[in-house]
Amino acid sequence: MELYTDEYFMNEAMKMAKEAFEDDEIPVGAIVVCRNKVIAKAYNQTEKLTDATAHAEMLAITAAANALGSKYLNECKLYVTLEPCVMCAGASFWSQLGEVHYAASDPKRGFARFSEGLLHPKTKVHAGLMAAESKQLLDEFFQKLRK
Amino acid sequence: MELYTDEYFMNEAMKMAKEAFEDDEIPVGAIVVCRNKVIAKAYNQTEKLTDATAHAEMLAITAAANALGSKYLNECKLYVTLEPCVMCAGASFWSQLGEVHYAASDPKRGFARFSEGLLHPKTKVHAGLMAAESKQLLDEFFQKLRK
Repeated sequence: MELYTDEYFMNEAMKMAKEAFEDDEIPVGAIVVCRNKVIAKAYNQTEKLTDATAHAEMLAITAAANALGSKYLNECKLYVTLEPCVMCAGASFWSQLGEVHYAASDPKRGFARFSEGLLHPKTKVHAGLMAAESKQLLDEFFQKLRK
Repeated sequence: MELYTDEYFMNEAMKMAKEAFEDDEIPVGAIVVCRNKVIAKAYNQTEKLTDATAHAEMLAITAAANALGSKYLNECKLYVTLEPCVMCAGASFWSQLGEVHYAASDPKRGFARFSEGLLHPKTKVHAGLMAAESKQLLDEFFQKLRK
């Protein structure tokens, strides 16, 4: 039985998104996997850290580089519950991530709207896994915020 | 006599770039100015921190947000010695920087190559101040690296 499927890892990222939700942060979670091992987990902390750059992916990429002792993450996979923005796409470019898996799309600030060239040419992209669940959590968050 | 000109601030950023050079980092420096006061200074530390996201601008934006206690930097100006990359342009979008001043252009990874929409629509951009000096420092660094 193969436990470490993409579904398993995206679900780990979803757990982080739910932690963000509990902390009143925009619920986005990310994990970095290297050789089937989760080496970094993070969720969006822009409010807590008072830092507009503290997106889940940025924190996860920095933590993964620390864990590996390498700034390049060619053999790593990023699982994130929302399509990375331009900043996070740029971070994945510089860290040369092997794969990026994202759940929900972000038509407003997602990287794909701007240019495919924002990611590293060797980075493989997979979209849509658990997209509905991620979108539901985000919608719930913004509904709560408006109340 | 007006001391706090754009030239003065870009020269402060250049000093940071020179510190990066001394530390064997790609020589890029950045400062953030708020109401004529330098509130953050940083230089590229991707090697020292083993973190591909540790660009001068990212570090300066995070430090400025900490200094102000606000994740938005609408009243701030970023001075950086090299055209920001896509990641740093994205960071300046999220922090809503009032102005971005950069010295040398980066035709390979500079944000302007990709799309004007990468920056916040309210961010004013100024390019070219001390560009030759910045380019010379970068060229010198890469020549040294190749030896």
